[in-house]
Amino acid sequence: MNTLVKFTAILLMFAFEAAANAGSNFDIIAHLDTGPGNVTVTDNGRIIMSMHQFYQPKYTVVEYKNNALAPFPNKELADSDSISNLKLDSVLGIRSDANGIVWMLDNGMRSGVTPKLVGWDTQSNKLHQVIYLPTPIAPKDAFVNDFAVDTRHKHIFISDPAGGANAALIVVNLSTGTARRVLEGHHSVIPENVDLVIDHVPIQVKDKSGKSVRPHIGVNPITEDLNNEWVYFGPMHGLSLYRIKADDLANGHLDTKALADRVQRYSDKPISDGITIDKDNNIYLGELAANAIGVISADKKYRRLAQCPRLSWVDSFSFGPNGQLVAVVNRLHQSSTLNGGVSTSKPPYYLLQIKALAAGLPGR
Amino acid sequence: MNTLVKFTAILLMFAFEAAANAGSNFDIIAHLDTGPGNVTVTDNGRIIMSMHQFYQPKYTVVEYKNNALAPFPNKELADSDSISNLKLDSVLGIRSDANGIVWMLDNGMRSGVTPKLVGWDTQSNKLHQVIYLPTPIAPKDAFVNDFAVDTRHKHIFISDPAGGANAALIVVNLSTGTARRVLEGHHSVIPENVDLVIDHVPIQVKDKSGKSVRPHIGVNPITEDLNNEWVYFGPMHGLSLYRIKADDLANGHLDTKALADRVQRYSDKPISDGITIDKDNNIYLGELAANAIGVISADKKYRRLAQCPRLSWVDSFSFGPNGQLVAVVNRLHQSSTLNGGVSTSKPPYYLLQIKALAAGLPGR
Repeated sequence: MNTLVKFTAILLMFAFEAAANAGSNFDIIAHLDTGPGNVTVTDNGRIIMSMHQFYQPKYTVVEYKNNALAPFPNKELADSDSISNLKLDSVLGIRSDANGIVWMLDNGMRSGVTPKLVGWDTQSNKLHQVIYLPTPIAPKDAFVNDFAVDTRHKHIFISDPAGGANAALIVVNLSTGTARRVLEGHHSVIPENVDLVIDHVPIQVKDKSGKSVRPHIGVNPITEDLNNEWVYFGPMHGLSLYRIKADDLANGHLDTKALADRVQRYSDKPISDGITIDKDNNIYLGELAANAIGVISADKKYRRLAQCPRLSWVDSFSFGPNGQLVAVVNRLHQSSTLNGGVSTSKPPYYLLQIKALAAGLPGR
Repeated sequence: MNTLVKFTAILLMFAFEAAANAGSNFDIIAHLDTGPGNVTVTDNGRIIMSMHQFYQPKYTVVEYKNNALAPFPNKELADSDSISNLKLDSVLGIRSDANGIVWMLDNGMRSGVTPKLVGWDTQSNKLHQVIYLPTPIAPKDAFVNDFAVDTRHKHIFISDPAGGANAALIVVNLSTGTARRVLEGHHSVIPENVDLVIDHVPIQVKDKSGKSVRPHIGVNPITEDLNNEWVYFGPMHGLSLYRIKADDLANGHLDTKALADRVQRYSDKPISDGITIDKDNNIYLGELAANAIGVISADKKYRRLAQCPRLSWVDSFSFGPNGQLVAVVNRLHQSSTLNGGVSTSKPPYYLLQIKALAAGLPGR
């Protein structure tokens, strides 16, 4: 278990894959032996990934550097065997901001510990901030998943699909450390009654009685435009993307109804995991059922950018510097958790690069 | 329940009481109908009190103003019926700092919620900071109690008697929001095998089987000198006061043994609740068993400053501006909790003023 990942990132292979993906708008940057969770790129080009908890990784967060993965920010925080009180237990959402802070959302589900948001200052290589999310901010069945960092409002907006009916956003004020659970149970965050079927196999989880059921998962994809004006989000199992003004989310004086009234249905979307956005408000997502990457352009129309058997659960996107857009593939539908208790998931998993329609903000 | 407290603070009565207390070095400022917890005075003279959770107060924190008690900082936070996610559930420790922040330590025990430290900015009348203290920082049996604010190190040091054997200090970094549990089970924080007997009646609590037992409570009194050099603390049920350098407590790189080695036994002390310190390092405390207020002077000798039947569980001290030293009396040994399930505690409870040997820092 000491080395998570071996890379066979030889130039020759890249050349082959680039050819194989001709017209598909994506290139594979690295083959990974263990499934990644989410990815972020800092504004100086460091690529940081959470490793998906469904695959019990040795290191919860890693940096892809020199064709290898190193624990990020260090072993003390990232090693699953660490005894540090700051240990990252199980991170999915990860985003870096314009101040060089890499934010990591620890859902705590591997060990049943309190979820927390941890900000690491990559410039000083020091802890920047920790904010715990105890109940009822994150209830017992919380699955705090992804988030958008808003440096203008000094807020972070978290998606929590939780148990479905109690899905919600969590609004975190980075100045005070307070957090509020909002829009709980609203139609924009709860799952729709749609099943996810990939390669003719439905996603199934074991329920409490051991029966296989098709899960419907609430709000998970979330991002925010580059002006920090609109927060876009929607249920993973859902065919609608919604948005709300960041001003309204950050306004603690709006009551439940007033806030709910400010949610807008924005566009259609396919069932998807994490999303991102560029400077022209093109929203990128993984079309899970089709092994594809697609984009909702500013005219609210959806189209595919790439489709390939290797785009096998595209989980997360991040812009880097110079217009680079990276994503990860983790075959999550083949994990034991989402495949009715039987893992058929095998490496390679991928870190890949997509041709974006326009530049984005590094880390988003 | 709307009005907690009626004051009969008539000048005539003060005159009488001042006479009655002649030679006793204390004056009663206010009679309270409900038992206070701890007290702090801001540097502009505002007197803020937590109301003791053993008496199920309507308002968890109050300000004593114009001979009445008003919820502090407002009803939203202080009212036990509030539905705010920032509601103060059960506060004992309360301290104001030189920046006008009133820090309140919510142990969460009335409702079984996660403990939190809440800083309220009295200058802008706005929330300053919230830091949650989830397990294992504050374990299931935590009773986070009192604390010292250190604006030089930007830290808060909390005393947690917890279950006795697992008593500990909690070191909170106000810059990052991180918290560490330290010195857990160390001899300086666990209770000694001494019983508290007041007016010939032993303090007794009901154990899980319903049997009355004499409780032994660990670290509770804690304060820090005005140079932010030494943190003084000790078990409530204990006859020793200890100290450790704030530099060492704030140093996250010291391991368990290294930190333990830096604790010094400082002096004898009687069984006591909250303590404070003045600029000459005189440490003030309530000598619970003797209905007295005493001081450990800089030569480490203890002596009584006042003894009176009305000094019936002096719980907490705070300096205010102009050398004022206030304290509260709450007859806690007569509460149902500490009197074997039978409340014999009756008003009046007191806010009082003591002649200090030297000036102190407002809020400490």
